[in-house]
Amino acid sequence: MVAENKCDGPFGCAVGATLSVIGGRWKPVIIFKLLQNDFLRFGALRKEIDGVTQRMLTQQLRELEGDQIVTRKVYAEVPPRVEYSLTPYGRSLEPIMLAMREWGAEHMNVVSEG
Amino acid sequence: MVAENKCDGPFGCAVGATLSVIGGRWKPVIIFKLLQNDFLRFGALRKEIDGVTQRMLTQQLRELEGDQIVTRKVYAEVPPRVEYSLTPYGRSLEPIMLAMREWGAEHMNVVSEG
Repeated sequence: MVAENKCDGPFGCAVGATLSVIGGRWKPVIIFKLLQNDFLRFGALRKEIDGVTQRMLTQQLRELEGDQIVTRKVYAEVPPRVEYSLTPYGRSLEPIMLAMREWGAEHMNVVSEG
Repeated sequence: MVAENKCDGPFGCAVGATLSVIGGRWKPVIIFKLLQNDFLRFGALRKEIDGVTQRMLTQQLRELEGDQIVTRKVYAEVPPRVEYSLTPYGRSLEPIMLAMREWGAEHMNVVSEG
């Protein structure tokens, strides 16, 4: 059993702090796609993520920027080129993403039957 | 960089499969609370989770039951006692939850400043 951990931070406990960063509907998949690619333009990111709307993707990226997970670089071209990438801090989420991928790969059959 | 993995399952890829199970707004925290407790009654679970409404908790628990992560046991008492616990399959999510807790503990200061 997981031992109870001390919860005295503003987010109640450590899992809550992580969830406050990656808990959005599309955030884990955005982070995962950016782990797989050094950088992605908005349109490319949207193509990679089935079902996300432009509005939702914009919103989730802004929140990830606010949490210093994602960085947005604008190149002064015509039309302007905008690229998203993970910060080193965002890359530190890799163990969580890998644990999610490992579990999913093992249990995909159960999930797909559900 | 995370290598691209083959995506031929109904959920696109392994991370998607995991997200389809734990991606709900309250699901990770429900799972975490049930890792910390062998079983919890509905009311106790609700008290453990700041901000969740009765309706949302009910809905998320039903989905977790449908995915065979959570089991619901009803005792024929008056009033009936209902207890929720993780299935062994649900307990296999523990490495993901622990990775989330570890990251949160390390980065709580950054998160709380954001």
